[in-house]
Amino acid sequence: VIERLCVIGVGLIGGSIARGARARGLVRTVVGVDLDGGNLDKALRLGVIDLASREVAEGTAGADLVMIATPVGAIEGVLRELQPVWSERAIYTDAGSTKINVIAAAERVFGAVPPNFVPGHPIAGAERSGVEASTADLYAGKRVILTPLALTDTEATARVEALWRELGAKVSRMEPRHHDEVLAATSHLPHVLAFVLTEMLGRKDEQREIFQYAAGGFRDFTRIASSDPGMWRDICLANGREIVPLIEQYREALKQAAELIAEGRAEELHALFSQARGARQRFLDQLEK
Amino acid sequence: VIERLCVIGVGLIGGSIARGARARGLVRTVVGVDLDGGNLDKALRLGVIDLASREVAEGTAGADLVMIATPVGAIEGVLRELQPVWSERAIYTDAGSTKINVIAAAERVFGAVPPNFVPGHPIAGAERSGVEASTADLYAGKRVILTPLALTDTEATARVEALWRELGAKVSRMEPRHHDEVLAATSHLPHVLAFVLTEMLGRKDEQREIFQYAAGGFRDFTRIASSDPGMWRDICLANGREIVPLIEQYREALKQAAELIAEGRAEELHALFSQARGARQRFLDQLEK
Repeated sequence: VIERLCVIGVGLIGGSIARGARARGLVRTVVGVDLDGGNLDKALRLGVIDLASREVAEGTAGADLVMIATPVGAIEGVLRELQPVWSERAIYTDAGSTKINVIAAAERVFGAVPPNFVPGHPIAGAERSGVEASTADLYAGKRVILTPLALTDTEATARVEALWRELGAKVSRMEPRHHDEVLAATSHLPHVLAFVLTEMLGRKDEQREIFQYAAGGFRDFTRIASSDPGMWRDICLANGREIVPLIEQYREALKQAAELIAEGRAEELHALFSQARGARQRFLDQLEK
Repeated sequence: VIERLCVIGVGLIGGSIARGARARGLVRTVVGVDLDGGNLDKALRLGVIDLASREVAEGTAGADLVMIATPVGAIEGVLRELQPVWSERAIYTDAGSTKINVIAAAERVFGAVPPNFVPGHPIAGAERSGVEASTADLYAGKRVILTPLALTDTEATARVEALWRELGAKVSRMEPRHHDEVLAATSHLPHVLAFVLTEMLGRKDEQREIFQYAAGGFRDFTRIASSDPGMWRDICLANGREIVPLIEQYREALKQAAELIAEGRAEELHALFSQARGARQRFLDQLEK
């Protein structure tokens, strides 16, 4: 049991960790830290947290486990506030969607990443956001990736892993660079593609209505374009080094597809679409496992 | 009441028209025509059709309404078979996903588009296909676009429109060119984007597993990449003149987004994503109407 869990950033991600830990009796006291007083009030009213603070130093005092669940762009600032009050007996972890930049931020703040800081990432987005949307079961069956470094304390990693498992997640460990590569492909790139398409068609729709003729396929395809713009700006900036080359690669693949269409190369087009369908089936088969 | 409805191409689209018309008592006899004998057997066994034929001439004999519900790439061949047995007292229509090329095919076959042929398109895809997937309510609440020409018989258009309305669809009329433009943006382009992304990531997944870390957002985004490859090859070839420039426009928009990311232009990136989210909300608001 965690005596005192401090969640920094009480939104969908942090709120769901707090709710899940409480619902399973994993924690005695939850302290919420947030810059946004309205968020804290809501979290208190909803019973997601027991105590609230707008100060990192105050909120983390005496905590056994500190979960940084702010958007990725805010993590360096949080680490800077944590630095003077960093406790050797607490375990720190984060839920940031990118890992290399969080590790780089910790290096800038601490010189070297502290052994009791375990970088992590729960793969459980939702297009909704905010503590109102948080649920105790957000992580049930979801994947969580931890990216401990060579010097990370193994006991600290094990305790963070245990928390996620008790919340129902499937936990993997990965090199930080590999994490950022994989997530760029399966999450960051698709989000950019959806945002860019929806913005482009939105401009067309303003000139002459087209959205009224869009159907269920379009709704599903663009669902991720309803995600939080600030969060995705931060992710793109944090992981640009992986995302930008993937966009380039995708633009090249699109160019080739456009050529197949323009030149009427029916068989190659059929092969391309068939391979895509086959690949998606492999993905679905894995999802069911 | 339609005495004799002939559905050419007994798959998801044609099967659902037959089922829907029968369920609502709109038709006395349904004749199914398909090159694929297995399809016909299934359709007979499922009670979707009353009579089956593999010959267009035989199957359409005595029909009041002939619905061409084959993939778009097969429509010209069907029209060629219809030409020698074309009846002045029947009404002909189609359910092809593109319209300019169907009209051009009819011009090639008949010299001019016959006045009793009403080009149409129900916007009701599904990633499933085949007569087994057909349902009586596929068109309930869906949009159907008719693209009659100046010389199209207004009575014929009205009868086709009435059939779709009785199947529960919202029917609009549109210029054929505008139909192809709108559908290229809201349907054809997204399908190409999903196919190309899924194929590209499928190749990465073969080298080093990435799909196991993909989540619900990816599942929704790639759903349309499970669509029938042959059908989408045909659509892309039929409407390449609209699709190819849109791909080019999208590649340019992606290039600009990549620049914003690479150059760390946070505010512009945030504005782009916010505009996308706003545009999607407009789309959702319209969908509910």
